[in-house]
Amino acid sequence: MATARRGDRRGEIVRAAFDMIGERGYPNTTLAAVAERVGLTQQGLLHYFPTKEDLLVAVLRRRDELDVSGGAVAGPAGVLEALAMLVDVNASRPGIVQTFTVLAGESVTDGHPARAYFAERYARVRALLAESLGDEVTAQLVIAALDGLQIQWLLDPEGADMRPAFDRLAELVGRGRAAE
Amino acid sequence: MATARRGDRRGEIVRAAFDMIGERGYPNTTLAAVAERVGLTQQGLLHYFPTKEDLLVAVLRRRDELDVSGGAVAGPAGVLEALAMLVDVNASRPGIVQTFTVLAGESVTDGHPARAYFAERYARVRALLAESLGDEVTAQLVIAALDGLQIQWLLDPEGADMRPAFDRLAELVGRGRAAE
Repeated sequence: MATARRGDRRGEIVRAAFDMIGERGYPNTTLAAVAERVGLTQQGLLHYFPTKEDLLVAVLRRRDELDVSGGAVAGPAGVLEALAMLVDVNASRPGIVQTFTVLAGESVTDGHPARAYFAERYARVRALLAESLGDEVTAQLVIAALDGLQIQWLLDPEGADMRPAFDRLAELVGRGRAAE
Repeated sequence: MATARRGDRRGEIVRAAFDMIGERGYPNTTLAAVAERVGLTQQGLLHYFPTKEDLLVAVLRRRDELDVSGGAVAGPAGVLEALAMLVDVNASRPGIVQTFTVLAGESVTDGHPARAYFAERYARVRALLAESLGDEVTAQLVIAALDGLQIQWLLDPEGADMRPAFDRLAELVGRGRAAE
């Protein structure tokens, strides 16, 4: 029982952080602010999430779950269309994309608390997309493009719209498959 | 004279940091270690570079200069070949790629000390590559792929080799142009 309640509380904290990142952006979503919203002291929050990175990884896992539930896809055209929709969804939630981008960038150092999450996530998404796109190298490329487009867009929302560049990739990948 | 000497000293510090990142990786290149190598106290180093980010941006600018001096290119085939060579160079210097990836990720937050550098760099490189690749959207995509491939490779050097995925993109872009 205690464990179930603890799990509920964790979920409540993650939802609060997720919402706050959407409302006020990544840098302003401090542990103190999240704690206040769920009625905990900062010490109390650290009991559930020892570091800010632990909480942010939980937020990104929640995003992953929400996205997957909307994206049961099959075949290369289907998956590229689903990913284009995901690009549009991401363009409407810069706070979450910021969280992902900062944490993914930092995770490449040894011993970073989010490294295991990202290493596992990329391997899993590569394998998943490879099923639809036909090979793992194309999957790796498509994921890379999505990540890199987010960086340029966050730095220059007017000048580096993600969707046209993703559409260009989808067109090239589609044409590449047609030529095989 | 004082200014010239100050500039020399700055250059010496940047070269030392650049070399140390190559030798021992990004997380182990602390301001204290760089200061020691150039015979300064940490306080003395902060006189030249007030924050670690300032020093790292200077290191990345140095990398940019070295890369550009090796890459006078013309035409889409030429530029894609030059970029493939750059991918190989990057695969041989994970410390610098780590520095770039961490800093680029962090730079997307407002007010980050490296934000101006990255925003300016992406706009400049997009315009530069657009000249060779024919349009800015393809340039944006190619840059995005390079950045994203670095993230996956740093997290999984065995499983996510950059070169095959970049070659796949180069092939698709080349085929796309041939079809136009």
